[in-house]
Amino acid sequence: MSDPKSVITLLHGAGGAYMHNLIKEYFLQLYDGFGEVGLNVLDDAAVINGIVLTTDSYTVRPIFFKGGDIGKLSVSGTVNDISMMGGDPIALSLAVVIEEGFPKSDLAKIVESIKRTAEDAGVHIVTGDTKVMERGSLDKIVINTSGIGVASDALEYNFKVLSRTRSVKYKWLVPMNIKDGDKIIVSGTIGDHAIAILSSREGIEFESNVVSDVAPLNKMIKAVLEVGGVADAKDPTRGGLADLLNDWADKSGLGIYIRESEIPVKEEVSSAVEFLGLDLLELGNEGKAVLAVSPEMARDVLDALHKTPWGKDATIIGDVRKDMEGVILETVVGGKRLVTRPTGDPVPRIC
Amino acid sequence: MSDPKSVITLLHGAGGAYMHNLIKEYFLQLYDGFGEVGLNVLDDAAVINGIVLTTDSYTVRPIFFKGGDIGKLSVSGTVNDISMMGGDPIALSLAVVIEEGFPKSDLAKIVESIKRTAEDAGVHIVTGDTKVMERGSLDKIVINTSGIGVASDALEYNFKVLSRTRSVKYKWLVPMNIKDGDKIIVSGTIGDHAIAILSSREGIEFESNVVSDVAPLNKMIKAVLEVGGVADAKDPTRGGLADLLNDWADKSGLGIYIRESEIPVKEEVSSAVEFLGLDLLELGNEGKAVLAVSPEMARDVLDALHKTPWGKDATIIGDVRKDMEGVILETVVGGKRLVTRPTGDPVPRIC
Ligand SMILES: Nc1ncnc2c1ncn2[C@@H]1O[C@H](COP(=O)(O)OP(=O)(O)OP(=O)(O)O)[C@@H](O)[C@H]1O
Ligand SMILES: Nc1ncnc2c1ncn2[C@@H]1O[C@H](COP(=O)(O)OP(=O)(O)OP(=O)(O)O)[C@@H](O)[C@H]1O
Ligand SMILES: [Mg+2]
Ligand SMILES: [Mg+2]
Ligand SMILES: [Mg+2]
Ligand SMILES: [Mg+2]
Ligand SMILES: [Mg+2]
Ligand SMILES: [Mg+2]
Repeated sequence: MSDPKSVITLLHGAGGAYMHNLIKEYFLQLYDGFGEVGLNVLDDAAVINGIVLTTDSYTVRPIFFKGGDIGKLSVSGTVNDISMMGGDPIALSLAVVIEEGFPKSDLAKIVESIKRTAEDAGVHIVTGDTKVMERGSLDKIVINTSGIGVASDALEYNFKVLSRTRSVKYKWLVPMNIKDGDKIIVSGTIGDHAIAILSSREGIEFESNVVSDVAPLNKMIKAVLEVGGVADAKDPTRGGLADLLNDWADKSGLGIYIRESEIPVKEEVSSAVEFLGLDLLELGNEGKAVLAVSPEMARDVLDALHKTPWGKDATIIGDVRKDMEGVILETVVGGKRLVTRPTGDPVPRIC
Repeated sequence: MSDPKSVITLLHGAGGAYMHNLIKEYFLQLYDGFGEVGLNVLDDAAVINGIVLTTDSYTVRPIFFKGGDIGKLSVSGTVNDISMMGGDPIALSLAVVIEEGFPKSDLAKIVESIKRTAEDAGVHIVTGDTKVMERGSLDKIVINTSGIGVASDALEYNFKVLSRTRSVKYKWLVPMNIKDGDKIIVSGTIGDHAIAILSSREGIEFESNVVSDVAPLNKMIKAVLEVGGVADAKDPTRGGLADLLNDWADKSGLGIYIRESEIPVKEEVSSAVEFLGLDLLELGNEGKAVLAVSPEMARDVLDALHKTPWGKDATIIGDVRKDMEGVILETVVGGKRLVTRPTGDPVPRIC
């Protein structure tokens, strides 16, 4: 038997501490100094020659779930990673790897969903690849979408506004822009995607009507950039809020203080979380963004979010504090706890 | 039992007629009119806003083979698709999907190989993604690389030269540039990759010392563009020469005449092909290019190829003829046969 430490485990794909360590140990050495926002930043996307480039493979199980499917997810996730850098998504590639025996009717549904989602987002699918693996060599289908985006007028305006109150070194939405006092805004209810996936799985013991939040957020991000004052944006996918906020704390070198009572959560998600013994902060989302916004502009950004269909439940959940370290959660009963990067995998293969 | 026609089969990933029909039936509808070289061209890459974008997923089995591994393949294949458009490859994304239980030592070897190949090609890995699937849900590892490139001075010079003898509408290496009389050049021996993969598989009944030709070809392509007069370039991967030449015949609306006696092939590959009853023209390659070059410049381009390590065995194998249709092969014994798109899969999962 091989040493369990010497092999890849599901935890290495869970978006928490194990994955980050794996990436640092194995992939970070590929960094060669290149890029305005290079591999070393380990952000949602890279920026090279003014072009935002990002990639994600989608392995979600089941491929059709409450509120979406692997096609909608593949377009939304990659559009969102471009958007979270402040980029305007232009074009995506679409690479499918299919298991022998996969029904063509399911492929047709997935392509239809890809088409609709790309149209909604206003992004173009321009190239692709199709591979087939023998029956038993792959669980149904894996999709990779990669994409490019460019800086927009809205992004430039955002930094014009932010520059009024701080010096801005990066003209992209990166954690290095975050400063003491920034407000942390979450664009809506947390945990919907993970719970929807879980309740779409066969053999799971609980029923829920929660639907995934999966959606392209580029129009929502554009709306907030047009208000201005956004330092960073990031989508809480694998690893959830817990991983995201720790990432920001690490990369900005600042503490983050959040209030549990302010975190938007659906009643049904809340009970599922309790029933299943999960940590809400570690659940993955596919249609939410977290923003760090200058205190001067936070209210206006929140108002702008509320006017969009994707941000109507947005709240300010906390702020950035230089006199603290790590991520501190003020619980509903007034206690405090340190939020660390997840070391478990609440729901494997959610994306 | 489901109707075999209603499911995906290995043939749909084989790079021949079945794959092309699948792409046309399912994916071509994603074309929305966008791009200087759009999805509709179904070429090695797309060009949008002056940026070359391409993607490939790599599912090769075994992952370590004679002359290479999935890491070297993943960088080379995508660099080559950018190069075959005439683009100068700048940056790649790297998305790995790994099976639970995969040895970290193998991952280390693959990353090392990726790093070395990227350095050789002078391309930067700038972003990535890591997913893990449960044991039994994936055969070891699948890698997707996507990449971007830009036009170079060499490309511009190439078309300056080509414009002396024809009007050039596309300033990228696309089949629409091919004209009657163009010489067909292949950059070296054919079939090495497929035979190397086959002989690296367990339980295969023949032994061979053939090594894969897998290599990034961007420097070779740059060398020929600096000579000028190249109308199109394409790499004969899945589907081999047979598929590539049919693609050109279809897209240019012209006939292609090639001589079997001129096709470079290693003695060992030749005997393996005979022994296994394969068609050399249908075998996949990963370090070869086929060029369509104006008759005036063909000799100079050939000389330039011979001076590079990747093109030393290059030959002119035939020419483009407007008074013909499809692809005609003049056999070594002087007979003629029509070469059609492959309808079988000589070696599944070669890339
Ligand atoms: N195999 C890899 N090679 C190079 N960089 C990688 C690799 N895997 C991940 N990264 C980098 O690590 C960072 C974190 O990746 P991660 O996939 O968590 O980001 P994400 O795409 O925003 O999240 P998710 O995949 O959950 O949507 C990114 O900057 C990414 O580019
Ligand atoms: N799933 C897909 N969606 C959109 N376009 C696709 C898809 N699969 C293939 N294509 C397009 O079809 C054409 C042929 O693809 P193919 O993968 O054969 O090209 P290639 O990458 O040059 O070859 P190989 O994959 O063997 O290296 C390309 O233009 C590609 O963009
Ligand atoms: Mg992200
Ligand atoms: Mg992502
Ligand atoms: Mg391909
Ligand atoms: Mg190609
Ligand atoms: Mg390719
Ligand atoms: Mg990712």
